[in-house]
Amino acid sequence: MKECGADAFVHYATGEEADMRYLTRFVMHDPFVFFKRRRQPGTIIVPLMEAERASRESVVAVITRTQAGLPDILKKEKDQWRATASMIAGQAGKTLLVSPSLPAALLRALEEHGRVIVDQGTVETARARKSPGEIRLMQGVQKKTELAMALGISLVRNAAVRKGVLYHGGEPLTSEIVRIAMHKQLMDNGCRAVETIISCGQDTAFPHIIGSGALKPHEPIVIDMFPRDEASGYYADMTRTVSKGKPGSRIREMYEAVKEAQQVGIAKIKAGVSGAEVHNAVVDYFTGRGYENDTRGFIHNLGHGVGLQVHELPTVGPAGGALEAGSVVTVEPGLYYPGTGGVRLEDMGAVRARHFADFTAFEETLIL
Amino acid sequence: MKECGADAFVHYATGEEADMRYLTRFVMHDPFVFFKRRRQPGTIIVPLMEAERASRESVVAVITRTQAGLPDILKKEKDQWRATASMIAGQAGKTLLVSPSLPAALLRALEEHGRVIVDQGTVETARARKSPGEIRLMQGVQKKTELAMALGISLVRNAAVRKGVLYHGGEPLTSEIVRIAMHKQLMDNGCRAVETIISCGQDTAFPHIIGSGALKPHEPIVIDMFPRDEASGYYADMTRTVSKGKPGSRIREMYEAVKEAQQVGIAKIKAGVSGAEVHNAVVDYFTGRGYENDTRGFIHNLGHGVGLQVHELPTVGPAGGALEAGSVVTVEPGLYYPGTGGVRLEDMGAVRARHFADFTAFEETLIL
Repeated sequence: MKECGADAFVHYATGEEADMRYLTRFVMHDPFVFFKRRRQPGTIIVPLMEAERASRESVVAVITRTQAGLPDILKKEKDQWRATASMIAGQAGKTLLVSPSLPAALLRALEEHGRVIVDQGTVETARARKSPGEIRLMQGVQKKTELAMALGISLVRNAAVRKGVLYHGGEPLTSEIVRIAMHKQLMDNGCRAVETIISCGQDTAFPHIIGSGALKPHEPIVIDMFPRDEASGYYADMTRTVSKGKPGSRIREMYEAVKEAQQVGIAKIKAGVSGAEVHNAVVDYFTGRGYENDTRGFIHNLGHGVGLQVHELPTVGPAGGALEAGSVVTVEPGLYYPGTGGVRLEDMGAVRARHFADFTAFEETLIL
Repeated sequence: MKECGADAFVHYATGEEADMRYLTRFVMHDPFVFFKRRRQPGTIIVPLMEAERASRESVVAVITRTQAGLPDILKKEKDQWRATASMIAGQAGKTLLVSPSLPAALLRALEEHGRVIVDQGTVETARARKSPGEIRLMQGVQKKTELAMALGISLVRNAAVRKGVLYHGGEPLTSEIVRIAMHKQLMDNGCRAVETIISCGQDTAFPHIIGSGALKPHEPIVIDMFPRDEASGYYADMTRTVSKGKPGSRIREMYEAVKEAQQVGIAKIKAGVSGAEVHNAVVDYFTGRGYENDTRGFIHNLGHGVGLQVHELPTVGPAGGALEAGSVVTVEPGLYYPGTGGVRLEDMGAVRARHFADFTAFEETLIL
């Protein structure tokens, strides 16, 4: 703020948006204003009906829209963005540093009041280095994630096989049944999961197809989940690939390559090494084993930061800069061949000065 | 687009953002580009790893970032916003109409390529009028919501009362137990609910405190839920207030007033009537019964649109314009008195030419 001569920093988003949650620790489903004047505490402007809850739950000062003058402004200004901009200018000042994700319509309306500088991502960058408290929360989510993974895999392991389909309790065992069982257990453990991938066979060749219908033996089953702690909003992210009975030799070979590639990546991670170097070490490893990294083979980044978003900074891929101690990242090599299938293994852990502190203790075994 | 001379309309958001989901019907957790040139179909630009899924699941044309030239752009331009802007300008044109929620940083980067007009909310406005297909989806979510409400209320009704606390199966019946039971049932029915309000006693005086701990007899219990259909993303929204055993006379009087106020609002709704008129009719009704509508009493809008967002257009409040046939709105009067408690009743239904078609069939009974 000082450098660019701004009176205040301004953000506008719902409390589900990661920067807003990080700044305020307040979850509200409609968008609201956060501002911080120099040498003053952060403040949010909320509707009257949210004021009491905001005072109890947020870590910032709270004023109501009425206290910020909105009703008077609305008497003259009917456009919601202009009215919001007038309210912000009145509270925060005329020269403003705004978040990069501020809505374009609000930026234009604020520009009518004075100079507006768009920040380059200070909050997003700050979020990438976790505090010890954040690390503990994320280790906790990871533990509950592994319990759910254990449940999902046990359903596959204990399934009966009849006519090329897995059965559980007399019914075909589907992706949906496994997903719902895992999600319910997470709910009991205070976590929320959505769209957990339980894909099987050909679908596994496409990393984000979530899977549906009956699971089959002798085929790769990719289980990729990213639950978040209900109270704090922090995520975990984890993937295992399994097969009920031995799959074909290509899948078995891909599995061994992916498992080893993960260790190559993990061994490379420490503070100061770039995400690109880590990613490229895995690319080189796969290339050495004869796998592509183009439109098939290893087709995505090796990893990404995790926190209040499931994908956040730092990048562990070709564009990734130097890793910092305290970042929590995934290491998730995968190989994808349409016509054959896909394999992915994903751990999550913290970047430390000299190593990668893996939060993930869960075994990696293909054949159940 | 034609009016303002733009080459194309551009949006940039995750597929969870309502306008993007409406335009593409494609859910992706990282943000991506949508553009539509005049007289051409809408197109999205996605990473390679999402291309197959996008082709299967979205209703728009799909190209990859590589096809859109991003890798070459990134060789010269390291700033992600500028690189994305170059890619967009190359595909969509130099004169662009952009969504009001486009990130400020992307707006600034696009302005380096040509003229950028910020749209006033065409997509958001279009979303406010539902098609018959959308109406059917929302009626379906409402039915499942009522099943969950029935479960939650039955847990309260069937609870035992000991020493001023509700009991279920030998344990105190808490907000958390009721919430999780309802959420699990919704999950079995293909719906996702978060942060369902199960507040009791003093907490009910604050509309959005979600509630925790043991429920009590002779106190208002507000159950406010907004589940969404997992497959389509459409929401329902519903509230009931109950009490295990007779609550105090003030709560009983508030309940009768709120129940009648809801009918006052419902009777007023039809196409052409403004949201403000409907809201004000309820304000007048409450005033006539001696209730405030300031910092306590009726402290929020009477209702809001529902669809791919739980709160969307139209507004049923002081700022609300003319309602249109096909909008789906809530009617949710409430009264809130710190020290006493709160009462809210919420139905959801469609605005029709001559009436309000209530989707909500669930009874309104205070005392269980």
